[in-house]
Amino acid sequence: MSPLLESYAAGRWFQAEDAGQPLLDAVTGQEVARVSTTGLDYAAMVAHGREVGGPAVRKLTFHERALLLKEVALHLGQFKDEFYALSFRTGATKRDSFVDIDGGIGTMFSYASKGRRELPNDTVVLDGGTEPLSRNGTFVGQHLYTSRTGVAVQINAFNFPVWGMLEKLAPAFLAGLPSIVKPASQTSYLTEAVVRRIIESGILPEGSLQLISGSAGDLLDQLGEQDSVDFTGSASTADILRKHPAVLERGVRLGVEADSLNCSILGLDVTPEDPEFELFIKGVVAEMTVKAGQKCTAIRRAIVPQALTSAVIEALSARLAKTVVGDPADESVRMGALASLGQREEVRKAITELRRGADVVFGDPDHVETVGADAQAGAFLSPVLLKAHDGASEPHDVEPFGPVSTVFSYRTTEEAIALAARGKGSLAASLVTHDPRIAREVTLGLAPWHGRVLVLDRDDAGESTGHGSPLPVLVHGGPGRAGGGEELGGIRGVLHHMQRTAIQGSPDMITAITGRWTTGSRREVGEVHPFRKSLAELKIGDGISSKPRTVTLADIDHFAEFTGDTFYAHTDPEAAAANPLFGGIVAHGYLVVSLAAGLFVEPNPGPVLANFGVDNLRFLTPVKAGDSIAVELTVKQITPRNSADYGEVRWDAVVKNQDGENVATYDVLTLVAKEQALSAGQG
Amino acid sequence: MSPLLESYAAGRWFQAEDAGQPLLDAVTGQEVARVSTTGLDYAAMVAHGREVGGPAVRKLTFHERALLLKEVALHLGQFKDEFYALSFRTGATKRDSFVDIDGGIGTMFSYASKGRRELPNDTVVLDGGTEPLSRNGTFVGQHLYTSRTGVAVQINAFNFPVWGMLEKLAPAFLAGLPSIVKPASQTSYLTEAVVRRIIESGILPEGSLQLISGSAGDLLDQLGEQDSVDFTGSASTADILRKHPAVLERGVRLGVEADSLNCSILGLDVTPEDPEFELFIKGVVAEMTVKAGQKCTAIRRAIVPQALTSAVIEALSARLAKTVVGDPADESVRMGALASLGQREEVRKAITELRRGADVVFGDPDHVETVGADAQAGAFLSPVLLKAHDGASEPHDVEPFGPVSTVFSYRTTEEAIALAARGKGSLAASLVTHDPRIAREVTLGLAPWHGRVLVLDRDDAGESTGHGSPLPVLVHGGPGRAGGGEELGGIRGVLHHMQRTAIQGSPDMITAITGRWTTGSRREVGEVHPFRKSLAELKIGDGISSKPRTVTLADIDHFAEFTGDTFYAHTDPEAAAANPLFGGIVAHGYLVVSLAAGLFVEPNPGPVLANFGVDNLRFLTPVKAGDSIAVELTVKQITPRNSADYGEVRWDAVVKNQDGENVATYDVLTLVAKEQALSAGQG
Repeated sequence: MSPLLESYAAGRWFQAEDAGQPLLDAVTGQEVARVSTTGLDYAAMVAHGREVGGPAVRKLTFHERALLLKEVALHLGQFKDEFYALSFRTGATKRDSFVDIDGGIGTMFSYASKGRRELPNDTVVLDGGTEPLSRNGTFVGQHLYTSRTGVAVQINAFNFPVWGMLEKLAPAFLAGLPSIVKPASQTSYLTEAVVRRIIESGILPEGSLQLISGSAGDLLDQLGEQDSVDFTGSASTADILRKHPAVLERGVRLGVEADSLNCSILGLDVTPEDPEFELFIKGVVAEMTVKAGQKCTAIRRAIVPQALTSAVIEALSARLAKTVVGDPADESVRMGALASLGQREEVRKAITELRRGADVVFGDPDHVETVGADAQAGAFLSPVLLKAHDGASEPHDVEPFGPVSTVFSYRTTEEAIALAARGKGSLAASLVTHDPRIAREVTLGLAPWHGRVLVLDRDDAGESTGHGSPLPVLVHGGPGRAGGGEELGGIRGVLHHMQRTAIQGSPDMITAITGRWTTGSRREVGEVHPFRKSLAELKIGDGISSKPRTVTLADIDHFAEFTGDTFYAHTDPEAAAANPLFGGIVAHGYLVVSLAAGLFVEPNPGPVLANFGVDNLRFLTPVKAGDSIAVELTVKQITPRNSADYGEVRWDAVVKNQDGENVATYDVLTLVAKEQALSAGQG
Repeated sequence: MSPLLESYAAGRWFQAEDAGQPLLDAVTGQEVARVSTTGLDYAAMVAHGREVGGPAVRKLTFHERALLLKEVALHLGQFKDEFYALSFRTGATKRDSFVDIDGGIGTMFSYASKGRRELPNDTVVLDGGTEPLSRNGTFVGQHLYTSRTGVAVQINAFNFPVWGMLEKLAPAFLAGLPSIVKPASQTSYLTEAVVRRIIESGILPEGSLQLISGSAGDLLDQLGEQDSVDFTGSASTADILRKHPAVLERGVRLGVEADSLNCSILGLDVTPEDPEFELFIKGVVAEMTVKAGQKCTAIRRAIVPQALTSAVIEALSARLAKTVVGDPADESVRMGALASLGQREEVRKAITELRRGADVVFGDPDHVETVGADAQAGAFLSPVLLKAHDGASEPHDVEPFGPVSTVFSYRTTEEAIALAARGKGSLAASLVTHDPRIAREVTLGLAPWHGRVLVLDRDDAGESTGHGSPLPVLVHGGPGRAGGGEELGGIRGVLHHMQRTAIQGSPDMITAITGRWTTGSRREVGEVHPFRKSLAELKIGDGISSKPRTVTLADIDHFAEFTGDTFYAHTDPEAAAANPLFGGIVAHGYLVVSLAAGLFVEPNPGPVLANFGVDNLRFLTPVKAGDSIAVELTVKQITPRNSADYGEVRWDAVVKNQDGENVATYDVLTLVAKEQALSAGQG
C-alpha cells in the first residue's frame, strides 16, 4: 500500500488511524499516496497557532522574519529534485513544475528581499504621515498596521501544490501570523514533502506552520474575529466558505481567489504581418497548454478583431496541432495530463455546455494522441479551441478548467472592453497591441474588471513573463467572479493580513507608540553632538539646534557663479521682482540646504558614515539676501540592518528664518555605525 | 396630514401614491412626516446611476470633483437653520446637531481639500512606483486605481441623518461613483431636506446622487460585480445584507460599520489627583449623553483599575446626576430624547439583559426627570451606569444603543487589553494615561481589535476631539463585531471605492497608460529647452541631456569652506580613506545636486516660476575628484491647478558619471505657468 500522508499539527506529525483515500498518479493511474484526517484535532491546531506560533513570530521584527524566509528558500532549493520527481506524478511537465517549484521558492526570496527593503526593522508598520488634527498641534493622528492575533488558514488549489502554499505563507509569515495550510488532497503529497523539509529544518518558529493533509474537517468552526481564511479554488467552493457562520457571523476575514474567465485581446492596430500577431498566437497557445490549462489565470477567451478571426483560428489551430501531449517526464512532451480522471470528466462536461454557444474548431474532447503514456489510464485531453456564436453567453460563464479556449470577434474597442466585462470580473487580462492610444483606452477600460492587465508588444515580449504568471511584486486577485480577493503585490500582500488602526494623541504619545519622532514632540538637545553617537547610543528625539547664519547677496551671487545655476530669480533683480512668487532676488533652494548641512554637520570621523539621501524636501518660504537661517535636526527613525555593521537613521530637518518661519523641511538619510568601534577613521 | 417625503430617482422627485407610514417627533410624539416607496422603480435608479451619473462623474478629474464637493459644502452652509430646526425633532440637542450637520458639511470640505492636495488632476490614481520585472528593463509593472463602473449604495443609520450621508457621499463621489442614498426612515425627513438642497443647487452632475425615502425594496436585487453597498447600522441588519445573493453570489462589495461595544481604559498610572482622572470621567459621561448615547462609537465599557473602581463610579454618578434631560431645543438641556419610543424600548430591553451580568449603580431605566418636555410622550431615558460582575459576559456582548455604560475592574495591563478584546472587535477605544510606556503597550495591544484608538492626557485634552468622533482624515470602522469595514481616512476612503490593478508592459506603454513618465521610456530632447515651454506646451517625456562637468578637488574644497560642511569625507584624505563606503575624498551630495541644477537650468525668465521641492533623492555612486557628471532631466508628471494660473511639473532627474553609472536620482518639483503670457518677467 502507498504511504499515508501525515498532517503537522500542534507540534508533531500526525498520522490517521484508518487507511485513508487513495491519490492516483495523473499519468499512470497508479496509487501515489493515501490521505486521511480521521482523528485530527483541529481545535488544538488553532490553539497551537494562536498561543505558540503567533507569539513566536510576532516577537521577531519584519527584517528577522524576512531573513528566516530567505533561509527557508535556500533550504528548499536543495531538495528540488525530490519535488520535481513528485511533480511529474501530478501530470506536470518540467516547465510546469518550474512555475510551481522554482516559482514558489522565488516568491519566498522576493518577500525576503522586499521585507528588508520596504518594511521597518520593527513589528509595526506606519501608514502615511502624521495627520494634524488641531490648530496648535497638541493633537495629531497616525495610521499604523499591527499584526492580528489569530491564525491564517490557507486553503489551496490542486494545480500549484508548492507555489500555492508558499505564495500565501510568505506574506502571512512576514505579517506575523501563524499559518495552517490545507492543500487540495489530489496533489497534497507534493505539498507534504515540502512542508516536511521546512519543518525538519527548524528554521521557522514552532507553531508558525501547520499542515492538514486531507479534509478541513471542523477547522472553520474554531475560527473567530482575529483569524483569516484565504482560499484559492473554484467559485462553487468559495460560495460554501462565504456562507459559513465563521465568516457571516464571527468576522473571520475571507479572501477568495477563484478561477475566472480571463481574456486576451488582440488590438485593432495589429495585422497578420506584425510581430504582435504571432505574439498573440503564442500567448493563447501557451496559456491553453501550460499545466494543461489548469491555471486560474489561463486565457479562456480570445477576443480578436472580426477581420482577423479566421486568420487567428487558423494560426492557433496550426500551432495547437504541433503540441505534443503525453508523459510529462518525456522531454518532447509539451503538455502533460490533467490532475485526475475526475478533472478530465469535469472539463468534458464544460465543453459540452460551451457547445451550446460555440463550435469546436480544433481538437476532439474524446480523443488525443499521446507520447509515452496510456491516453486512457492517464488524465489526458486534447487542446480544444472553440469559436463563439454571436451574442452567446455560455463562453463567458462556463469555465473549462483545462486546455480549452474560445475565440470571440469584435469590431470596436468599446465592444472588446464590453466582451471582456461579460466575464464578470477576472484575475488577468492581456492586450496585444503596439499602439499606445489603444493600450491606454483598452487597459483603463479593462482595469475595473481585473486584478492584472498585461500589455504585450514587440518591445517587452522578450522579457515578458506572460499572461498567466502572477508575480510576487504585483497584486494577484480580481473583482466579481474572480473572488474579490487580493494577494501578493509585494508589501501590499503583507498589509492585507494586518489591521490598520488610526491612533490619536499628543505628539509625545504618538512618538512613544510608533517609535518614530513626530513633529511637536520632545527633542533632546544635549552636550554630545548626535553625529558622535553610535546607532546603539542614539535615541529617537536626539537633536541639535544650530546657530544662525546670514545669507548675503554675495553668497547668492557666488553660488550662482560657482554652480552655474544662474536662474534669473537668483541673479536678475528686475526679472526676479516680476516673479509672482518671489518679488525679488531669492537664495537657491540648493544653497539653503547646503548651508544647512554646514550648520548641522559634525566634521570629525565618527559613527555617521554617509548621507545617502534626502526625502520630501519642500521649500516653504523664500530666503532673501540678509535673511538668516538656522536648522533643527532631530533623530526621527532608527533602522538597524541585521546583515551589516550599520543601520539607517532618518533625521527630521527644519530650516527656519529669523522670524521663525519654516524655510525648508526635509528628511536627511544617513548610515550610522552600530558601535563606536566600527566608526570610520577610528580603526 | 404631515408631508409625504419624496425620493429622488432617475432624474426626478418621486412621490408614492399611498399615504405611507408616519414618522414621529422624538420629543413630542407628533407626526413630522410620512414615508413610502410604493411604486418606486429601483431598477431604473440603478440604471440611471450607471448610465447617466457614473459617466458624468468619471469625465471629471479628481480636482474637478473635489471643487464640486466644496461648492456643495458652501451651498449647504446657507441652510443650516433649516437643518437644525428639523434636527431638534429627532431628539438631538444643538450640540448633537452640530456634530451631525456641521460635522457632515466639514467632512465635505475635508474631502474637497484632500482631493486637490493628495490626488492627481486626473482620473486614475497611481499606487506606488514602477516595479522592475526584468533584467534589461523592457518589462515593468505599475499598480493603479480606476473607478468602478457601478453604483454606490449607501444605507445609513438613523442617528446621523446628515453626517451619515455626507461622510459616505464625499469619498464615493471623489472616487467617480454615483451614489444611491438610503437613510433610515426614522430621521429621513432631515436627510431628504439636505438632498433637496443639493439637487436644487444643480452643482452635482445629474445621476450622481439619488435618494430613497423609505424602504430599500428590491434595490439589492439590481446590483452586480461593479456595485457596492456601504452600510452603517445594527449587527443584525448587517447579517441580513451579508447573506443577500447580491453579496454572496454576484460579487457586490459590502462594507459594514456596525455598532460595537467600544471601551475606554483608565491607565494604571493615574491617581484621582491627576488631571487624567477627571478627563476620563468627563469622557465617559460625554459619550453616554451626547446624542443620548445613540452613537456607534460611544463608550459602552469603562475599564478601570480595581483600586479606583469605587472612586470612578462615584465621580461618574455625581456628574451624571447633573445631566439635565429634556427638550433638546432648551438651552439648559444636556441630553435630549432617543430617536423614538421604539428605540427606548430596545434600550430598556438591553438593560434588562445587561443586569444578568451587572448591577445598576446609577439611574432608573423606567424613570427620568425632564425639562420642557413630557417624559412619557417623548422618548426620554435616564443615563444608566452599571458595574459588571467579575467574569460576566453580558456587558461584553449586549449593546444598549442609548445612554448606558458598564464599569469593569482590572488589575494588570494585560487584563485590561484582554477585557477590551472581549468586545470582539470595536470601532474605537480610548486610553487615558500620561505614561508613554503604558500608552505604547496598551495601544499596540488594542490596535488589532480596533479601527481607532485615542490616547488622552493633559497634553492633548484641550484640543482632542474626543473618544466618539470619527474624523474625515482618519479611518472609521473596526474588525469583527464592528463589521470589518473601513470608511473615511482621507484618500484611503476614496481608494476603497476603486479597483486596484497591476499593469505590466514596456516602459513606453506604461507611460502612455498612466500619463506618468516611466524610466526607460522614450525621451524627447528637442531644440527648445523645456523650461521655455508653458504647461500647455510641455509633454510627458520632454527633456534635456546636459553637457558634462568635471568635479575637481578644488570644487570640493571650496564647497566645504563656503558652506561650512567640512565633514571629513570631503576634507580629510586619510580619514576619508578609512570610511568603509567611500575609501577616499568624495564630493558632497549637495554639491552634486547643486552642480546638476547648474547643468540643467535655463536662466532666463520663462514659464518655470520656481523649484518648490525635491523628492526621493538618493546618492547611489560616490563622486570623486576628477569625475565628471552630467544630468538627464525629463518631464515626469504634469498637474495643472484648477484654481491658479500655473501647475506643478515633476521632473525625473538622473545624474550620471563618466562611466554611465547613476550618481544620484531624484524628482525635481517646479511650478510652471499655464501659458507663455503668464510667465514671469514677461508681463
